[in-house]
Amino acid sequence: MAMVCISDFEAYAKKYLPKIVWDYFAAGADDCTTRDENILAYKRIRFRPRMLRDVSVMDIRTKILGSEISFPVGIAPTGFHQLAWPDGEKSTARAARAMNTCYIVSTYSTCMLEEISAAAPGGLRWFQLYIHRNRAASQQLVQRAEALGFQGLVLTADLPYTGKRRDDVRNGFRLPPHMKVKNLERAFEVCKMSLLDPSVTWNDIYWLQSLTRLPIIIKGILTKEDAELAVRHGVQGIIVSNHGGRQLDEGPATIDALVEVVEAVRGRVEVYVDGGIRKGSDVLKALALGAKCVFIGRPALWGLAYKGEEGLQDVLRILQDEFRLSMALAGCASVSEIDQRLVQFSKL
Amino acid sequence: MAMVCISDFEAYAKKYLPKIVWDYFAAGADDCTTRDENILAYKRIRFRPRMLRDVSVMDIRTKILGSEISFPVGIAPTGFHQLAWPDGEKSTARAARAMNTCYIVSTYSTCMLEEISAAAPGGLRWFQLYIHRNRAASQQLVQRAEALGFQGLVLTADLPYTGKRRDDVRNGFRLPPHMKVKNLERAFEVCKMSLLDPSVTWNDIYWLQSLTRLPIIIKGILTKEDAELAVRHGVQGIIVSNHGGRQLDEGPATIDALVEVVEAVRGRVEVYVDGGIRKGSDVLKALALGAKCVFIGRPALWGLAYKGEEGLQDVLRILQDEFRLSMALAGCASVSEIDQRLVQFSKL
Amino acid sequence: MAMVCISDFEAYAKKYLPKIVWDYFAAGADDCTTRDENILAYKRIRFRPRMLRDVSVMDIRTKILGSEISFPVGIAPTGFHQLAWPDGEKSTARAARAMNTCYIVSTYSTCMLEEISAAAPGGLRWFQLYIHRNRAASQQLVQRAEALGFQGLVLTADLPYTGKRRDDVRNGFRLPPHMKVKNLERAFEVCKMSLLDPSVTWNDIYWLQSLTRLPIIIKGILTKEDAELAVRHGVQGIIVSNHGGRQLDEGPATIDALVEVVEAVRGRVEVYVDGGIRKGSDVLKALALGAKCVFIGRPALWGLAYKGEEGLQDVLRILQDEFRLSMALAGCASVSEIDQRLVQFSKL
Amino acid sequence: MAMVCISDFEAYAKKYLPKIVWDYFAAGADDCTTRDENILAYKRIRFRPRMLRDVSVMDIRTKILGSEISFPVGIAPTGFHQLAWPDGEKSTARAARAMNTCYIVSTYSTCMLEEISAAAPGGLRWFQLYIHRNRAASQQLVQRAEALGFQGLVLTADLPYTGKRRDDVRNGFRLPPHMKVKNLERAFEVCKMSLLDPSVTWNDIYWLQSLTRLPIIIKGILTKEDAELAVRHGVQGIIVSNHGGRQLDEGPATIDALVEVVEAVRGRVEVYVDGGIRKGSDVLKALALGAKCVFIGRPALWGLAYKGEEGLQDVLRILQDEFRLSMALAGCASVSEIDQRLVQFSKL
Repeated sequence: MAMVCISDFEAYAKKYLPKIVWDYFAAGADDCTTRDENILAYKRIRFRPRMLRDVSVMDIRTKILGSEISFPVGIAPTGFHQLAWPDGEKSTARAARAMNTCYIVSTYSTCMLEEISAAAPGGLRWFQLYIHRNRAASQQLVQRAEALGFQGLVLTADLPYTGKRRDDVRNGFRLPPHMKVKNLERAFEVCKMSLLDPSVTWNDIYWLQSLTRLPIIIKGILTKEDAELAVRHGVQGIIVSNHGGRQLDEGPATIDALVEVVEAVRGRVEVYVDGGIRKGSDVLKALALGAKCVFIGRPALWGLAYKGEEGLQDVLRILQDEFRLSMALAGCASVSEIDQRLVQFSKL
Repeated sequence: MAMVCISDFEAYAKKYLPKIVWDYFAAGADDCTTRDENILAYKRIRFRPRMLRDVSVMDIRTKILGSEISFPVGIAPTGFHQLAWPDGEKSTARAARAMNTCYIVSTYSTCMLEEISAAAPGGLRWFQLYIHRNRAASQQLVQRAEALGFQGLVLTADLPYTGKRRDDVRNGFRLPPHMKVKNLERAFEVCKMSLLDPSVTWNDIYWLQSLTRLPIIIKGILTKEDAELAVRHGVQGIIVSNHGGRQLDEGPATIDALVEVVEAVRGRVEVYVDGGIRKGSDVLKALALGAKCVFIGRPALWGLAYKGEEGLQDVLRILQDEFRLSMALAGCASVSEIDQRLVQFSKL
Repeated sequence: MAMVCISDFEAYAKKYLPKIVWDYFAAGADDCTTRDENILAYKRIRFRPRMLRDVSVMDIRTKILGSEISFPVGIAPTGFHQLAWPDGEKSTARAARAMNTCYIVSTYSTCMLEEISAAAPGGLRWFQLYIHRNRAASQQLVQRAEALGFQGLVLTADLPYTGKRRDDVRNGFRLPPHMKVKNLERAFEVCKMSLLDPSVTWNDIYWLQSLTRLPIIIKGILTKEDAELAVRHGVQGIIVSNHGGRQLDEGPATIDALVEVVEAVRGRVEVYVDGGIRKGSDVLKALALGAKCVFIGRPALWGLAYKGEEGLQDVLRILQDEFRLSMALAGCASVSEIDQRLVQFSKL
Repeated sequence: MAMVCISDFEAYAKKYLPKIVWDYFAAGADDCTTRDENILAYKRIRFRPRMLRDVSVMDIRTKILGSEISFPVGIAPTGFHQLAWPDGEKSTARAARAMNTCYIVSTYSTCMLEEISAAAPGGLRWFQLYIHRNRAASQQLVQRAEALGFQGLVLTADLPYTGKRRDDVRNGFRLPPHMKVKNLERAFEVCKMSLLDPSVTWNDIYWLQSLTRLPIIIKGILTKEDAELAVRHGVQGIIVSNHGGRQLDEGPATIDALVEVVEAVRGRVEVYVDGGIRKGSDVLKALALGAKCVFIGRPALWGLAYKGEEGLQDVLRILQDEFRLSMALAGCASVSEIDQRLVQFSKL
């Protein structure tokens, strides 16, 4: 079967992954409304393509927090890559480096940060952090990441408790015994996530800033009010995210929330978005609405499930080709030419 | 089969209840548009969740007319609980008390008010009343309820005649011979409800007030005009309700009508809502839009059908857990922090 | 099978009528969008029901052009009733008289006007007219109808040519040889309708007025502009109609057009509507939006197909009961209490 | 099977064409959203039909750039007609001439321009051009067309690169070996279209104007900004088109974009539209919204696939009959009576 578009990888993963794993990756909270809305919301945005512009030389590179990437698509933090492919996050890191893009490594990796770094030295990586009840554990993780050359710290803000994902409850999902969340001091039961601290507030940003010189990106912002708070607390970036629809169901689709956040931020920090990206043209829409870069979650896992490092590169390359073609057909030869006039919201 | 969400109980009830009973509980008027809209309307409301608030200590209690309940979900008045479970309303009363919430006992109970009270002494209960042509019968019911310690009187306003529920007509629904509407002087054919008085008007509120010191809650209000009238006639509470879509089809979904009613009432009396609640997050939406508490009808029956008192407790506990989690994920640590900024109506 | 609602008659007719006849009655123009929209548009209208009004005595009578009818539902003009029931329009006339309502007899009746009159003497009937190329033929029809005691003349304005009904073309629909369009001088091929005059204009209203003292009702108006012209040309009534979606596809649903027409007419003449009425509550919506009465087309044919005169009475009685119940549940005890505040258009 | 409407030809073509050919003709870019939206958008437009106008004599002729055509439907440029019928574009040319309408011959014809001209001398034809990297090749094509009596030059603006049509990629679509793109100097692989020049800009309009005295029509405009640029660069006509949804997916439906373009152009040049025309009433809608003429792509191919020249005439005749009937039923006796008051956009 030819792998022509991202849906092909999804179909492959659904067919070949163990059901319990597929369900875990696919899961959304409650009725999965938000998970699905993330995708549907893109369909309500229409391009206003411009013609007869010289698009013979295309430049799709961009920079995030000063680092150049080959195109504005990075790898969002998702857990447990060994469930998709034996080499787990090491493959992810290699694919991201090969494609010259950014990989946000999850706290819930099944490989050690050290292993991931060693697998793809020099790659652009950010580290995703949950703040634990045991602050020393979090501090140690941050400092390990910084020492290993990670270039950004992504604080996930939308998981004081884990969302209710019905299939995982029914399946009794847990990691198989031979996999571990290696980056944490001691193994623990993941589904409970009882180590996470639900008392975290904006003031903990200051604490994080005191631990590290890494730029801090906050992930999970969906409102203008929180965007303003993020800027005021000195973060360097915001990832508009609803955790792939896995936390609070029936919040906004991320592409819809992006508009509100971008307007509130007024260019003071970089804004990114994840959730629902399935085509290169989705990337173009997100950039037109003010995102500096997008991050993909499930599509990366499907790529891994298909062929590990190589499969993930296939996914990224397809998105890259589609993004470049969409830009050209919309009349943009470089990322700097993309702006809001390129899109409109469908009345339907 | 694990009972993970309310739909699981619905599926169970549909499978195991006799068809004629399932149809009766499920019935909506005419095309069942309003019955279904009650649910769909919740899906058009989007959360605006807030992040990084301390939600380590959650307080989901509330008060209705001065009585504390463990969380803002009570049991709406529905008839004929023995159709769902042999012990009928006695089981309902026990479950409500066990979960420390309010149970509105229907006039059309298959257990005597005295039996219900004895089954769960000390539970918070309100009594639901239709006004009969024979006013003495209604007066006697009110005074029995008051004497038994019921703490509120719920006047149903939307049933001058019974709505047209096609399946019940086709099935020739009637109570099986061994069940009785025990609270009324003599048995009568329920589907006709020929004892109800369609000449009732707002002035009858004054008559009710003359009979009892119980607070009066009016159930079935859907417009701002009637909300204003209710306040002016001195009721203590309003339940926004369309009788589960069983009366006038193609009226508004209750969550939509709630907005209009809350705005008209301007805090002068408490406003509640029933209809379409299927998830803890629905409760959160209703509270964000101004409801003090919600009441569940069919889900309670499904719980009873599953395992009687225990099954209804399961239903309530699931809603409670989901409500608590939704609040936390939306950034609210206590019910008092919930307000209208938490939601927006989807444009779709 | 119990006949509980109008859809039951539809299902019966679909099952028992010859396919070519069912197709002819069911046919809409082109994609049948407007035919179906007529029904869907009612579903977008929501009631705002009022509570605690005395609805113990219901009065559902109304008057059209001065004649009292038992409830505001008449029989729209449709052709070829013998296709549905052997006695054809004679049965229709008897049922309409029995239910004390108005029957608009079509030019394309399969019974003579004289037979129809004789079948139900004293019934309230209007005569529906197409203007033919041979004006003398039309004049003769008008004068026969007036002489027979018909009390109104309904000029159909939306059929200069016959709409394209694909199934009729595929089926090669034509009347079976033993049926005739008896009211016209000589038999002719109905599907061509080549006798109709496509040059008719508003001035022909004056010509009609010169022929008869009957009030003239114009049928097929869908815009405010034409409503204004109709009033200016001295008609006594307007039937908002799109010919059951059989003429121009993708025009407005009649209930939507009604709003525009009623606003333009400002009470100067009576306004009626046909198309899409399937429930008593649809009648209530039409009246709330300003219609004086509605007319049913296909449902009458389904009633005939079920049991002739008796079946049509069943249909009318169901609509009557549903209308009365809807009124009561909406808080209206008489037709005069129905007004626009009773409804709102759904945003969806 | 009777061919009653355009969908019948579609069904025929889907059944009898080789799958790879059907897929090629049917293909849309990416998710085919825009391809399908082209059709759906027509359904959201409602007529406001007018009654009692004299429509006994219908005149459906119009003029495009000064040439009279029998009705406002021409043949859009599509490639490879031999895939549909052995005689290819020669049949198309004969059918267009027989129906007295305009045929826009594609650069990617499988017949030589000279053969096409010889097949139907005197027919009204425009030539569709892509600008190639080898400008001399383009110049030669333009001048051949002009010499052959083509009366307009249609520059396609929306194909700097070919859109991503997944089925074509999966099928490995390419012309069968016995077919050639005969008008180009040397055969080449069509799917790559590597000969097209993606550096073309508005200035190349001036270059084209220097080559030919033919009027220039620009095809592929979807925004007011580009419409304004087109007028300023001196084109004689604009075809609002999204290439049948085959280029940038999720741009606007053409009938929606038409409104914006017509408003911007303010009558300075003629505006046409293609995409989604499936019924005569679609043509009427397009004219009401300001199009001077529409062009059909896939329906013409389906006609060819059915019976070559004769089949295409059938398609055109059906559209002609439907257009005439729609006009009459909407109250327009000639094309000059069609204006924007005839339509409104549905709120749904």
